[in-house]
Amino acid sequence: MFQINENYLKLQGSYLFSTIASKVAAYSAANPQKDILRLGIGDVTLPLAPAVIDAMKNAVEEMAHPETFRGYAPDGGYEFLRRAICEHDYRSRGADIGTDEIFVSDGAKSDSGNIGDIFGMQNRIAVCDPVYPVYLDTNVMGGRTGLADPLTGRYEGVIYLPCTEENGFVPQFPSERPDIIYLCFPNNPTGMTISKSELQKWVDYALNSGSVIIYDAAYEAYIREDGIAHTIYECEGAKKCAIELRSFSKNAGFTGTRLGFTVVPKQLMCGDVSLNDLWARRQSTKFNGAPYIVQRAGEAVYSEEGRRQTREQVDYYMRNAACILDGLKAAGYTVYGGVNAPYIWLKTPGQMTSWEFFDHLLERAAVVGTPGSGFGPAGEHFFRLTAFGSYENTKAAVERICSL
Amino acid sequence: MFQINENYLKLQGSYLFSTIASKVAAYSAANPQKDILRLGIGDVTLPLAPAVIDAMKNAVEEMAHPETFRGYAPDGGYEFLRRAICEHDYRSRGADIGTDEIFVSDGAKSDSGNIGDIFGMQNRIAVCDPVYPVYLDTNVMGGRTGLADPLTGRYEGVIYLPCTEENGFVPQFPSERPDIIYLCFPNNPTGMTISKSELQKWVDYALNSGSVIIYDAAYEAYIREDGIAHTIYECEGAKKCAIELRSFSKNAGFTGTRLGFTVVPKQLMCGDVSLNDLWARRQSTKFNGAPYIVQRAGEAVYSEEGRRQTREQVDYYMRNAACILDGLKAAGYTVYGGVNAPYIWLKTPGQMTSWEFFDHLLERAAVVGTPGSGFGPAGEHFFRLTAFGSYENTKAAVERICSL
Repeated sequence: MFQINENYLKLQGSYLFSTIASKVAAYSAANPQKDILRLGIGDVTLPLAPAVIDAMKNAVEEMAHPETFRGYAPDGGYEFLRRAICEHDYRSRGADIGTDEIFVSDGAKSDSGNIGDIFGMQNRIAVCDPVYPVYLDTNVMGGRTGLADPLTGRYEGVIYLPCTEENGFVPQFPSERPDIIYLCFPNNPTGMTISKSELQKWVDYALNSGSVIIYDAAYEAYIREDGIAHTIYECEGAKKCAIELRSFSKNAGFTGTRLGFTVVPKQLMCGDVSLNDLWARRQSTKFNGAPYIVQRAGEAVYSEEGRRQTREQVDYYMRNAACILDGLKAAGYTVYGGVNAPYIWLKTPGQMTSWEFFDHLLERAAVVGTPGSGFGPAGEHFFRLTAFGSYENTKAAVERICSL
Repeated sequence: MFQINENYLKLQGSYLFSTIASKVAAYSAANPQKDILRLGIGDVTLPLAPAVIDAMKNAVEEMAHPETFRGYAPDGGYEFLRRAICEHDYRSRGADIGTDEIFVSDGAKSDSGNIGDIFGMQNRIAVCDPVYPVYLDTNVMGGRTGLADPLTGRYEGVIYLPCTEENGFVPQFPSERPDIIYLCFPNNPTGMTISKSELQKWVDYALNSGSVIIYDAAYEAYIREDGIAHTIYECEGAKKCAIELRSFSKNAGFTGTRLGFTVVPKQLMCGDVSLNDLWARRQSTKFNGAPYIVQRAGEAVYSEEGRRQTREQVDYYMRNAACILDGLKAAGYTVYGGVNAPYIWLKTPGQMTSWEFFDHLLERAAVVGTPGSGFGPAGEHFFRLTAFGSYENTKAAVERICSL
């Protein structure tokens, strides 16, 4: 008899956002007249930028003619896109990354799960708490953890790095040495970030301890303040210890268009084995490229028009973030994030649990957010609001919350 | 110090098609004046059908406006596409598959690699020999095999099912019981297939032995003869033992557009664990949906126009297959396949090895094919030609081969 991967049975409940969707669907069915305002899932709402639309239209037209039709894409992505990425995301930041160190994919969620494939099972992982669930869940599914503690929800064998009010939501070095460290700045879910000098300390720590950092920079476009690294490769030595994940979802609204990339520097070695080679092999065996049309859309994000238009979209969302931040502060809430990130991390009032506050907000204000405890035990008594709605809805949601 | 996944080091050489690409690139650089005819990689050449192009243009336009913009797609794919799949690929064949048993993805290559995630490491796998390399390589990478025998290239712990001239390229039941059986009909690389009654025997075998069948039906659209199952769910009991992989690459030319799906029936259980639940969890955690635009393109494949237009494309390629088959037979070659599949499986002349014949064809005729031995030891002394070129190039290639 065949056997399933028993590690799946260690997972706790269903994926956070599926649970939220079910709760909202039930509420909506019971209250069909209510206008639900959604600041929960981190999904964008603005349409794709005109430069992106134009590029896709052209690419669709190319697919209609034999002379310009494209079949299988080159492993790792088209050179036109990889060159644009190198130039605008790396060289312009002083980071010398080559096109053969960039692997184009269908998005950062896939990559942040799949990257585990190239590492051994015996590696000890470290994740922030709270954390984007995908890093942790995919390691549970892969077999790198023990069982979850029924009380705390924490998995045996995982090193948790609490990000709390006390430490300003910046993780401290753990007492046990991890092999793989997941970091995400600007952070999902807290909306907080880390200075370049603090990040340099993590790079130095990884170099000294022989760890590898999986650095998720999906929210880089939201950085507004100086002194914050836009890529980990701004830090000295990072090419020897860090893999960077990037996405087009939040900077250019590609959540339903699907495009991302992963940087695996050639200097990143484990003994005499190149991680760049391993990832190239993984991708050429288990992935067949992002659609041509979507890669052309990605290229257009880097055009002069595309950069201006997508920057305006980010500005629009950051105006929402300011609206949430200012509104809730004025109403007496304790709030974090929202300055260099599209997420606001709100402390629940009156010692409510995160899910109590979720129900409270849904039932009393028809506003949907994300319970902080869904991101880990240290997220308990917190609540995530996103800035990805329309300005009108965001403003209305803030007013409803403040009037509770 | 972090550790890599040592299983990757068991892999032999690089991925078959990367090796071919390098050889062709070297030849091309050395012989810039030569017009290389490519019947190697199974990549389509006809442009996307007009109905598909129209659907994509409309979808791109939708992404340009806030009222019609789409963000994250629902887990497993949009209902409009899953409904079309159910209707045209299953109910019309008498197979009662529900929309919640269909999981839309970015293609069958990803799915055929990723499906291993939900099975335990201790499962014994069986693959045909020769075989599409992805089934085997992904199991090696995942750790379900031992080392490769340096002489035969066969991995320890894998049950090989030889498909040879002697057995008409139909695998026989193995003497050892496998847990997971990979089958692909019509077959890549041999171009041969199996009757529905023979397939029913494999379903019965799996049910009796507690095995699960991973059934790759990517070439279903090329079936021309009666008595061949278009889906494994035409066989009685298959919903209790089989997962089916499907692709839009070959029936509708989506190799560079990327769309596929996997069927995991709700009746497929391992004890009290539903494989449908496990795959749903895998996909919702490690994948974020196929692009909206591409899902609309997929839907258009099932429209009346789309079905007619894509059927014409398949007919075009099958005319190529007949041209290769007839031409080579007339020239005295021993050839198989090409009747219900876009692949021709050619016996190399004069006891040449597959790679000797590859070099011979490239150097003497500037024609590229795929060495049979690249698909497994039983593929030695065979060679795969594909029908996916233009008719003119296919005809010219056949003439060049026949004049050698």
